[in-house]
Amino acid sequence: MSKHMPPAHPFDFDALSGDAGDDKLHEECGVFGVIGVTDAANFVALGLHALQHRGQEAGGIVSYDPGSGFNSARRFGYVRDNFTKQSLMETLPGALAIGHVRYSTAGSKGATQIRDVQPFFGEFSMGGAAIAHNGNITNADALRRELIERGSIFQSSSDSECIIHLMARSLQRKVPERIMDALRRVEGAFSVVSMTRTKLIGVRDPLGVRPLVIGRIGDDGWVLSSETCALDIIGAEYLRDVEPGEMVVIEHGELKSLRPFMPAKPRFCIFEHVYFSRPDSIIGGRSVYETRRQIGVELAREAPVEADLVCPVPDSGTPAAIGFAHESGIPYGMGIIRNQYMGRTFIEPTEQIRNMGVRLKLNVNRALIRGKRVILVDDSVVRGTTSRKIKEMILDAGAAEVHFRIASPPTAWPCFYGVDTPQREKLLAATMSEDEMRDHLAVDSLKFISLDGLYRAVGEATGRDASCPQYCDACFSGDYPVAPSDMIAKGFELKAAE
Amino acid sequence: MSKHMPPAHPFDFDALSGDAGDDKLHEECGVFGVIGVTDAANFVALGLHALQHRGQEAGGIVSYDPGSGFNSARRFGYVRDNFTKQSLMETLPGALAIGHVRYSTAGSKGATQIRDVQPFFGEFSMGGAAIAHNGNITNADALRRELIERGSIFQSSSDSECIIHLMARSLQRKVPERIMDALRRVEGAFSVVSMTRTKLIGVRDPLGVRPLVIGRIGDDGWVLSSETCALDIIGAEYLRDVEPGEMVVIEHGELKSLRPFMPAKPRFCIFEHVYFSRPDSIIGGRSVYETRRQIGVELAREAPVEADLVCPVPDSGTPAAIGFAHESGIPYGMGIIRNQYMGRTFIEPTEQIRNMGVRLKLNVNRALIRGKRVILVDDSVVRGTTSRKIKEMILDAGAAEVHFRIASPPTAWPCFYGVDTPQREKLLAATMSEDEMRDHLAVDSLKFISLDGLYRAVGEATGRDASCPQYCDACFSGDYPVAPSDMIAKGFELKAAE
Amino acid sequence: MSKHMPPAHPFDFDALSGDAGDDKLHEECGVFGVIGVTDAANFVALGLHALQHRGQEAGGIVSYDPGSGFNSARRFGYVRDNFTKQSLMETLPGALAIGHVRYSTAGSKGATQIRDVQPFFGEFSMGGAAIAHNGNITNADALRRELIERGSIFQSSSDSECIIHLMARSLQRKVPERIMDALRRVEGAFSVVSMTRTKLIGVRDPLGVRPLVIGRIGDDGWVLSSETCALDIIGAEYLRDVEPGEMVVIEHGELKSLRPFMPAKPRFCIFEHVYFSRPDSIIGGRSVYETRRQIGVELAREAPVEADLVCPVPDSGTPAAIGFAHESGIPYGMGIIRNQYMGRTFIEPTEQIRNMGVRLKLNVNRALIRGKRVILVDDSVVRGTTSRKIKEMILDAGAAEVHFRIASPPTAWPCFYGVDTPQREKLLAATMSEDEMRDHLAVDSLKFISLDGLYRAVGEATGRDASCPQYCDACFSGDYPVAPSDMIAKGFELKAAE
Amino acid sequence: MSKHMPPAHPFDFDALSGDAGDDKLHEECGVFGVIGVTDAANFVALGLHALQHRGQEAGGIVSYDPGSGFNSARRFGYVRDNFTKQSLMETLPGALAIGHVRYSTAGSKGATQIRDVQPFFGEFSMGGAAIAHNGNITNADALRRELIERGSIFQSSSDSECIIHLMARSLQRKVPERIMDALRRVEGAFSVVSMTRTKLIGVRDPLGVRPLVIGRIGDDGWVLSSETCALDIIGAEYLRDVEPGEMVVIEHGELKSLRPFMPAKPRFCIFEHVYFSRPDSIIGGRSVYETRRQIGVELAREAPVEADLVCPVPDSGTPAAIGFAHESGIPYGMGIIRNQYMGRTFIEPTEQIRNMGVRLKLNVNRALIRGKRVILVDDSVVRGTTSRKIKEMILDAGAAEVHFRIASPPTAWPCFYGVDTPQREKLLAATMSEDEMRDHLAVDSLKFISLDGLYRAVGEATGRDASCPQYCDACFSGDYPVAPSDMIAKGFELKAAE
Repeated sequence: MSKHMPPAHPFDFDALSGDAGDDKLHEECGVFGVIGVTDAANFVALGLHALQHRGQEAGGIVSYDPGSGFNSARRFGYVRDNFTKQSLMETLPGALAIGHVRYSTAGSKGATQIRDVQPFFGEFSMGGAAIAHNGNITNADALRRELIERGSIFQSSSDSECIIHLMARSLQRKVPERIMDALRRVEGAFSVVSMTRTKLIGVRDPLGVRPLVIGRIGDDGWVLSSETCALDIIGAEYLRDVEPGEMVVIEHGELKSLRPFMPAKPRFCIFEHVYFSRPDSIIGGRSVYETRRQIGVELAREAPVEADLVCPVPDSGTPAAIGFAHESGIPYGMGIIRNQYMGRTFIEPTEQIRNMGVRLKLNVNRALIRGKRVILVDDSVVRGTTSRKIKEMILDAGAAEVHFRIASPPTAWPCFYGVDTPQREKLLAATMSEDEMRDHLAVDSLKFISLDGLYRAVGEATGRDASCPQYCDACFSGDYPVAPSDMIAKGFELKAAE
Repeated sequence: MSKHMPPAHPFDFDALSGDAGDDKLHEECGVFGVIGVTDAANFVALGLHALQHRGQEAGGIVSYDPGSGFNSARRFGYVRDNFTKQSLMETLPGALAIGHVRYSTAGSKGATQIRDVQPFFGEFSMGGAAIAHNGNITNADALRRELIERGSIFQSSSDSECIIHLMARSLQRKVPERIMDALRRVEGAFSVVSMTRTKLIGVRDPLGVRPLVIGRIGDDGWVLSSETCALDIIGAEYLRDVEPGEMVVIEHGELKSLRPFMPAKPRFCIFEHVYFSRPDSIIGGRSVYETRRQIGVELAREAPVEADLVCPVPDSGTPAAIGFAHESGIPYGMGIIRNQYMGRTFIEPTEQIRNMGVRLKLNVNRALIRGKRVILVDDSVVRGTTSRKIKEMILDAGAAEVHFRIASPPTAWPCFYGVDTPQREKLLAATMSEDEMRDHLAVDSLKFISLDGLYRAVGEATGRDASCPQYCDACFSGDYPVAPSDMIAKGFELKAAE
Repeated sequence: MSKHMPPAHPFDFDALSGDAGDDKLHEECGVFGVIGVTDAANFVALGLHALQHRGQEAGGIVSYDPGSGFNSARRFGYVRDNFTKQSLMETLPGALAIGHVRYSTAGSKGATQIRDVQPFFGEFSMGGAAIAHNGNITNADALRRELIERGSIFQSSSDSECIIHLMARSLQRKVPERIMDALRRVEGAFSVVSMTRTKLIGVRDPLGVRPLVIGRIGDDGWVLSSETCALDIIGAEYLRDVEPGEMVVIEHGELKSLRPFMPAKPRFCIFEHVYFSRPDSIIGGRSVYETRRQIGVELAREAPVEADLVCPVPDSGTPAAIGFAHESGIPYGMGIIRNQYMGRTFIEPTEQIRNMGVRLKLNVNRALIRGKRVILVDDSVVRGTTSRKIKEMILDAGAAEVHFRIASPPTAWPCFYGVDTPQREKLLAATMSEDEMRDHLAVDSLKFISLDGLYRAVGEATGRDASCPQYCDACFSGDYPVAPSDMIAKGFELKAAE
Repeated sequence: MSKHMPPAHPFDFDALSGDAGDDKLHEECGVFGVIGVTDAANFVALGLHALQHRGQEAGGIVSYDPGSGFNSARRFGYVRDNFTKQSLMETLPGALAIGHVRYSTAGSKGATQIRDVQPFFGEFSMGGAAIAHNGNITNADALRRELIERGSIFQSSSDSECIIHLMARSLQRKVPERIMDALRRVEGAFSVVSMTRTKLIGVRDPLGVRPLVIGRIGDDGWVLSSETCALDIIGAEYLRDVEPGEMVVIEHGELKSLRPFMPAKPRFCIFEHVYFSRPDSIIGGRSVYETRRQIGVELAREAPVEADLVCPVPDSGTPAAIGFAHESGIPYGMGIIRNQYMGRTFIEPTEQIRNMGVRLKLNVNRALIRGKRVILVDDSVVRGTTSRKIKEMILDAGAAEVHFRIASPPTAWPCFYGVDTPQREKLLAATMSEDEMRDHLAVDSLKFISLDGLYRAVGEATGRDASCPQYCDACFSGDYPVAPSDMIAKGFELKAAE
């Protein structure tokens, strides 16, 4: 197919097959909880809506009201389509509620069932509790085997269900102590929001891999949320992060801070800054937008190129592209237009439509691109399939040159801490060097930001501390802060010591 | 409410009540047709998906297949949610199909019913035809009365249904001649796509108020579409626009051009460039994106201001903001973040959620805005309700100054040619001067592009020709190229001669 | 397959394939209207529920309220599943409403669409009207062609739509006169209920083929209904039948009787007594139950047989079986049990389930049947497929002898007056004598009531007046009181004169 | 309200308020399982359809296939509306499946949730098992408390879930032994069907309160079912009942019989004969239809009365009415007609429709009733509300006298073995003598069959053995064969020793 011609025949779209959304890493969950407000579930619905980017497959809310006890609703689909209906929200009364949004894990054996949707609830001998978990338990298989052996019945295929069973078997009477008992058995990454009849509880694992923030609302209300953008939507004020290894118990308008775990040096997920979190969130005290813009600045310094246009791959490449354009002085322009009605994947599409792939989401702004040397700024390259299609679209539209600049280092290792990653062999950077990738994508140049450059962009002026990295960057470095024991048992090979 | 504090109480959101989407003008329709391809309805579905911004309430497709005759499907909701299911698409076989997307007209008496959804179909004595209409018939009331008097039974409340009844009563045998008969009786704006068992037909009114373009696909296929972005999605090649006053009849792979109307000087809708059309479309030979960017350039020249940040009101203000930033040298940044999961309005929301208004769609990027003098670039001001809320959000986030720059002149007159506009008294610019609007919005400055500036941005180097304007700009000027006779009968007063 | 053994293999059920419900004649419609009560649509919903046996595919209601005008709702499925929801009924306010239930015509080209569901509504120059029609127009094809030629656009495939178009084209100003104009052009059978903003109107064709009764409710309320059982459900009092050829116009609490047609000798459908009407209805002043019981008595006299048990084929054979048992002195018993949860046909059944046929609906009471000589009383034999399966089930259960007694004469001719009948060649009695049918069904004896016996059972002491029959019995006799002109044009051959 | 007048006003229906269905005792479940056939789930769907009378609220099926493991589907609503869809049934492959239909327990705290719907499934250390339970566990509260104390997490509010948790905690390795362990801890009534990957298992409690039968299908197939009518529908052959206290384990085409419990004298539920079971079922070797007919015969002997018509209250009173008519020589007739489209209760009905009560289901055959002395034969009197309304309908229709004959003794005690009964104080017979009930219902006479008469009808020639009754008749006698320990703990008082 020559560059400047549209496909000769409608069925040539096969060349574009696949789904742009498939070529990203995906956060698997967002959690949110609120206590001390009227109709708490409504606030949770709003909070989950603001966290929808962390999980689109399903959502759930549990609330507690003295009159009707614990109530829950779990639904597939978007928050806006389910948890906005008066009829549903009326079934979730009370001043205390927690919720969860969940991403569809591509690798799971079968389809998710509604029983896999969190929060999970357990009735214990001294009262019930609900929990919502963001992260991943790396010893879940072993724990599940042990619990089943002892007579627990699992209802879901979720690793998070281990937590509630460990809580049920704790010899402690009170729920916070049961949570401590349970989480001390758990390895991996967890930001947990839990509730009893009177308490809202938040816990982060000792490394603090996943985010969890604390907000205030009204005079007596407290909020726990994966990100600050969900505080903004309900008009809550950001107070601080739950610290790595901290457990907060909020009751009667007061917050109590506990430290149930052995102290450890924090290793927050650096990819939250690159892609997962919303740009309007503040995490670890840093603006995500500003970090991404700064990545673009670093990239322009590390990998300059002569060109006519800096163009983001929408929407996640936009802040870095703005930074790149500003630093390089090359004009910024929207060379690729995103179809705003492409919110979720087409369901049950016909073969023909499925083959349209990227085109359903993105269209090239031909008039702008034609004849130009174009720098495309994207957040990451996973499989490389989308990058390749975008390059083709840009060339078809008549671009003179195509230069890719990537706002993260090569993604060469899977994540085991709550991010859905393809198997290692599917990651382009696991099998190719940067030059091989450039040739594979057939672009004029391809440059990733360096790991040190990324650390500088998140404010570490001297770059990465290789002996004791400030962040979890396992997906780039293969340096896993917690050994993924279930995966190792299944044969996963860690990076050889250098 | 003090600037840096969140609302004191969750129910303070009333201050934000309303729906950001309500404060825009809305195109009422998009049309698309294709002939000479296998499974034409699949292409129409894709085309309508690309035209979804022209109408989100409902969509319909009619196809023809020699085996099963005419088939149709009309559905409420998005194209992606309906016309992607294999089961539905299989009911629409054939090599010839047309489709329509429709916007919910806010002012209509009751809810739209499925029978109001186009294309409309009529069985005539020599065979059937389907039509899809973008535009508005300004003498529809009078025509409807006359047709009912003579025994026609209307099924919908749509003005467009007049066309099919006029066709049914035509004494001509052939459909193209029936269409001519019908459209000669019709006043107002119309871009019509129609089909018989063997023909795809396109017509534009003599002034060419609404767009309609011609594309080629494969060896023998032809496409008609409201915009070129829908040609791109199916890989069709843009050939040319249907000319104002032209009728094209495509049959057996050949296009025949007819001129059924008295010639007139074209008056294409200038607001298509400002807001309605997608930025990646080419209309009248001009890139919409480039026009919008140029509006920003003109605006920076006409209404400069000292500031720290140029920030678009997403997404429609973005190209103009890029142009403004480029021309002014002030940094461009994303001060307002749009929730990408807010595709359609929340259905049946609870009172509390309804009151969240703008916040569900937009959030301020506080870290970027704080302490800055901000230029907000928006495409238009209609009622001013959203502008006011955005200003409050920006100030709450700690901006030092807020300057609005609007990429269109003040919208002071309703449109009667296929755009859903509030009644004149609801238009802010109909009752206030620019200074009054600035005070009403309580911003540091507010400037609209001049009408001449807008004409320059669309390529008219000498600006607007007041004696004979090159475009329809009635919404800004009150200069209506076709007298809105139904509305005048209902008491609408035209602008007094000056 | 030997008699006393269950099928050797689960897939042997093919022998039972088909659907018991398919082997009946089906009334195509029921109509109901009420004026002068609060929330008239609720009464119509109840009335249609009581008339559900006359049509199960779909139902519709139109109401009129001065505040909101005409409103309508049309739904597929049972009345009880649609027209009982508060949310729907609230959309149908007013003191005047009409409704219609519709049977799915097996022979129609494609699936029924919602636009085929009555009542039909038309806006005329002096105001609107809605109509609901029970019956069939035998010159509908010719009328439709003529109307299309003159510019009418048909929305449905229903013959009844002709009436509303003829009304629209009438030069009369008032709706009752328009109805008269329209119905004078119409041939065939019609019981029509219509409404304007202030009037409830009922009309029966000159022969009075289909039923229509008048009831009173409260002080000022009036009801029109296909059957009296629908008066009972709302507590209305049966006043009298609308007379053949009569038009009643009810307005301001008064009924006015008109005679718009040439007088004719009535020919009420005798099959309404045999099967269509509910046993608790009174039609033409006669109890349907008593008539059916009397048919059983006549049958016992005409066709006695020695046996141990009289057993109805449920539910329609029950009254005749009671009469047969009483007259013959042979014990009555429930040898066949109907599954009461079999209300409607299984939708989208798997192949295996589809092949179960009768068994899903009926089961043999083996303990009662075993070793007995059984008389099975059924209302009619259409294709004979169900009779055959029932016989097999009875023999499998160990019956010693099986004798069929049929409560109607052989059904040898299709109905063209509003009943869904198979094509003539599918009717068992069209191609076989009584003896041949007995051999075909392989039963010990098979006897139908004689035509004279049937007339005696409906109270005509001297039987049928062959020169001028008191009823329409075309399905038995081939003696059509109105020439089926559309069908003759398509090649249907009337019975040769004898 | 005078007898022969319709209600003066449409809102007088309040007199009929309530739901005929509410005035019955209801079986809470039906169970079905099959092994050794292709597509076993299809057979289970058919079996459950035949058992639908035992539970209408929800149904579930679990199947096992070596390729895809255990699969399950649980749905609210009728079997025919859910488990007939090809798309659903394809998700339930395999040669082994069990199912359950469930009745909505009126007294439960909240609405049933889908997680309450059986079969329940548990993954144990040596493999999984599913169970379906008909009956009620009378020590479920105590068991649940104990299990929660030890760390089990309950997912449902169902008493049956105890069984699967007890199984999970059993120290036995194999599922049959785990079931034995579990059921030995359970008090009350249980007919359980269970499955592992290779076994179909059936168990009945030592008293055999609820039915469970064994059937054969094809060469190698085995069936377990609550009733024989569900064997008939799939063409299976009735082999024998599972004996009280017996456990059958079917694997590789062989059935093994075990006796895990202490032997006890059987006490089968006599009400299964009166009302619960379908008349075409054989239970305990007796035809249910014949038993009911015989009850009518006994009743005619015990409580004769001069009258003109014996009329069943449909449909459950029909066999007894046939027996009564036969024995008394008084003609049998259908004085009350049941609306066959009233399968399930109207959902979300409007107030007006809700008030129609009985009329939606039943209509009087006025022509038959008028002027007659009528004997109404009903199966039981629970609250008496429906009896009262039926009496009024009969008198309104002009009956001269109304005599009630009830085919069971007075229902004076609640059932705790799997039947949904009102609280004792709501049972008419708990607070009134037979004469008081007659006066309360205002009928000319009211007679119940005697307990001895009932025992004679089920074949116990010498009546009830008071010292050691042959059946469980606690609902009539207050003689509970298993102490209802949870209820006693809640304050229920057993009948004082006499």
